[in-house]
Amino acid sequence: MLDKGNVLVAFGGGPTAVINETLVGVVLECRFRVRNVYGAKNGVKGIIGQEFVDLTRETNHNLELVAGTPSAALGSTRMKPDAEDCEQMLRVMRAHNIRHFFYIGGNDSAETTRIIAESAAVIGYDLRCIHLPKTVDCDLVQNDHTPGYGSAARYVAKYFLGGNRDNWALPGIYIVVTMGRHAGFLAASAALGKQFPDDGPHIIGLPERPFVLDRFLGQVDDAMRKYGRCVVAVSEGIHEGDGVPITAKLAQHQEIDAHGNQQLAGTGVLGDWLFHQVKTRTSYSRVRVETLGYGQRSYPDRSDVDAREAREVGEKGVQFALGDNQNGSVTIVRTGPYTVDFGLERLEAVAGLTRTMPPEYLTECGTNVTDAFHIFVRPLLGSGMPHMYRLRENPVPKIDLDRMFV
Amino acid sequence: MLDKGNVLVAFGGGPTAVINETLVGVVLECRFRVRNVYGAKNGVKGIIGQEFVDLTRETNHNLELVAGTPSAALGSTRMKPDAEDCEQMLRVMRAHNIRHFFYIGGNDSAETTRIIAESAAVIGYDLRCIHLPKTVDCDLVQNDHTPGYGSAARYVAKYFLGGNRDNWALPGIYIVVTMGRHAGFLAASAALGKQFPDDGPHIIGLPERPFVLDRFLGQVDDAMRKYGRCVVAVSEGIHEGDGVPITAKLAQHQEIDAHGNQQLAGTGVLGDWLFHQVKTRTSYSRVRVETLGYGQRSYPDRSDVDAREAREVGEKGVQFALGDNQNGSVTIVRTGPYTVDFGLERLEAVAGLTRTMPPEYLTECGTNVTDAFHIFVRPLLGSGMPHMYRLRENPVPKIDLDRMFV
Repeated sequence: MLDKGNVLVAFGGGPTAVINETLVGVVLECRFRVRNVYGAKNGVKGIIGQEFVDLTRETNHNLELVAGTPSAALGSTRMKPDAEDCEQMLRVMRAHNIRHFFYIGGNDSAETTRIIAESAAVIGYDLRCIHLPKTVDCDLVQNDHTPGYGSAARYVAKYFLGGNRDNWALPGIYIVVTMGRHAGFLAASAALGKQFPDDGPHIIGLPERPFVLDRFLGQVDDAMRKYGRCVVAVSEGIHEGDGVPITAKLAQHQEIDAHGNQQLAGTGVLGDWLFHQVKTRTSYSRVRVETLGYGQRSYPDRSDVDAREAREVGEKGVQFALGDNQNGSVTIVRTGPYTVDFGLERLEAVAGLTRTMPPEYLTECGTNVTDAFHIFVRPLLGSGMPHMYRLRENPVPKIDLDRMFV
Repeated sequence: MLDKGNVLVAFGGGPTAVINETLVGVVLECRFRVRNVYGAKNGVKGIIGQEFVDLTRETNHNLELVAGTPSAALGSTRMKPDAEDCEQMLRVMRAHNIRHFFYIGGNDSAETTRIIAESAAVIGYDLRCIHLPKTVDCDLVQNDHTPGYGSAARYVAKYFLGGNRDNWALPGIYIVVTMGRHAGFLAASAALGKQFPDDGPHIIGLPERPFVLDRFLGQVDDAMRKYGRCVVAVSEGIHEGDGVPITAKLAQHQEIDAHGNQQLAGTGVLGDWLFHQVKTRTSYSRVRVETLGYGQRSYPDRSDVDAREAREVGEKGVQFALGDNQNGSVTIVRTGPYTVDFGLERLEAVAGLTRTMPPEYLTECGTNVTDAFHIFVRPLLGSGMPHMYRLRENPVPKIDLDRMFV
C-alpha cells in the first residue's frame, strides 16, 4: 500500500564509515510503502535549493554497494539553517509533497529536525520528522553509542595497536591527537591498542577532565623511567579546566600572529604545542607527534557491528514514522552483552545536547580508562580485530670479550 | 645436518607491517640446519652490546604469530655504525661463533652489511653476510619493489579511497603528506584512491620532479574550477629543483626561529607551509592538510602479497648463505603479471644507493602517474582492496515555488 506523500532523506555534518548504511536502510524500508524517496544533496543546502535525487530509481544492488562505501553518498554540509532557512525548507517540502523527513546527523542535525517539525506543526502541515543518529564522537545523549563511532574507534584502536609496537621497536615519546571536541570516547578507544601490561597508550588526555600540563609532563617522565618509552592519546578537545579547548586558544593566538594558520585548529596546532612543551620541559630527545585525520571517519575498514546497527537505525526510523506515525530521534539502547535494541526519543530530548564519558569509564586520575570502558567499547569495534604478538626474548649469556681475545 | 656455527639476525631502520615475516623466514629456514639462531635486540646497538635473544627457543607457533604482527619484533635502531663499531661487532660475532649474519633493512643497512662482510674477509674470519631488503619507500636499487612497500601503499591507497569520498561529501582542498624522502613510490600509491574519472588525487607531488609552487597553485585552481574540489598527495621529500627537500629548509628556518619545532621536519612543517601557501595565495576557504604518520608502516592491515614475499626473502636469504655459501643482498625480481622470483646481488650493488621512480611511471607534467605505474603497484596492495560506489543521482525536477505558493 503506497502512502500518500513522498519521503525526503538528507545528511548533516561530517561523514562516517557507515552513514550510507543508514541512508540505504531508509530507502529500502520505504520501498513498496511510498511512491518516491528523494535524497537532498548536501543536506539542508540541497533542501533549500531543491537539489533532489530520486533514490526510488536506484537499483537495490547499487544501493547495497553504496551502503558499504564510506562517507556521505548524497554529500553533506556544515551549514546550520536559521529560521528563514527552515521556513524555505518547509516550502520546498510542501511543494514536493514530502510527508516524511529523515535527517541523518549529530545533535545539531537533531536540532534542525526539531525546528522543522515544530514549524510544520505551527502551520498545520502534516509532516513526520525523524532524526537518525550519526557521529564518530559518540556524543549524542539518550544513546548507548552512535552509528559511526564503532568504525572510528576501530580505526583508532588499530592505529594504536600498530603504533604501540612501532614505538616499542624505536622507543621514545609518541603522542597522537584524535578527534573528539567535547567527548573523549574516540581518544579513549586508543586504550584498545594495549595488550601487554607495558603497552601504550600510557596516558590518555580527555576533555572530560582538565588537562594539567605539569602533571602530564610528570606522567610522561614516569612512563619513560618505567618503560623507556611513552605512548599518549590526546583528544583534540582537551582544555585546562576552563572548558575552552587548548586548540581554540592556540588558534586565537595564531590569528593575532597573522600566520594565516588559524584554520589548523583541530589539526596540527595542539600537536605542535604538546611537542614544544615536551621538547622544552623534559630531557627526552626522541619525540614524535601525529594528528589523525579523516581516516578516523572515512578509512575503508569499518566495524561490521557498527555497519549493521547503522542500517537498522535507518530501517527503524522508517517504521517509527511510516508505521507508527511518530516524530522523534532513533536511539540505540544496549540490552545485554552484546545486544542492542532501538528506541525513539522526543527530538527535544536529543537536540543540541552533548553527552560526555560517564565517570565510571575514567580512572580516578582521569588520564586512563577503566575495565567498564573496555566492556563498553570492545563489541563496537566489530569482528576481525588483530592481535599483536611478540617474542619471548630468551636471553643469550654475554661473553667476556676482553678475556676471550687476550 | 647441523652447520658448525651460529646464525645472527637483526633489524635496521624504521619498521614495516611485514618485517617480522622476514625474521621468521630466516629462523624457520635455519631450523635443523644450525645449532643456534640468535636475534640482536635493536639492530647494531644490540650486536655491539651483546643483547642477544635465542630465537631457537621460540615455538614455531609463536613465531608464526609474531610474523603476522607489524613492527620489528627484535626492536630496531637508527644508529649508523662507524668503523670502530663494525670492528666491535665482528669481535662479538667471533665470540659467539656467528658464521651467518642476516641484516634486514634499507640501503643503509645494506651498507652496514657490506662493511662487516669486508672487515671479516680482511681478518680471514669465515662469515657469510646477507642483506634482506625492507623499506616502505621502495627505494632500493636492483629490486622491482621491496618488502614493506606493498602494505604501506595499501594503507595510503585505502586512506585516499576513503579521503576522496570524504572530500567529495564536504568539498574543499584536501592535501595529504606521505612518507618518502627520496622516492615518490608511496605518495604515488595515492593514485589508487582514484576510481571515478573526477576522483582525487588530482595532483601528486613527487621528489622525482621539482615542485613548482606557482604551477601547483594553478593546478589546485584548475581542479577547483573543474570539480569544485581538489585532493592532493604530496611526498615529504618534495623539493624546488635544488634537491634540498622543502621540509629540510623549513626545519632549518624554524631552528633559527628557536621555536623548538625543528624535529617536526617530515611531520607537520611541510603540511603547514602548503596550507599557508594555499590559504594566502588562493581565494578558497575550506583547506585541510594532514600528514600521515606511523600508520603507513605499522597499521595492522597488511598486504598478503607483501607478507608472503617478505617471508620468502628471509627463507631465500638462508638458502643463499647456508646452501650456496654466498654473501649478497636478496632482491625481488618481477617475472610476469603477477609473479616474482628472488635473486642475490652483490652487496656493493645495493649498499647506499637510492632508487627513484622510473620516468615511465610519471606523466609528462610530473604531477600524476601513468597506467604503467598502476600496473606496477596494483598487485602489491594484495587481496581485499575495497571498491567505492556512489549513487546514480537521477535528478528530481525543481518546482517553481513562487508560482505554487501565490
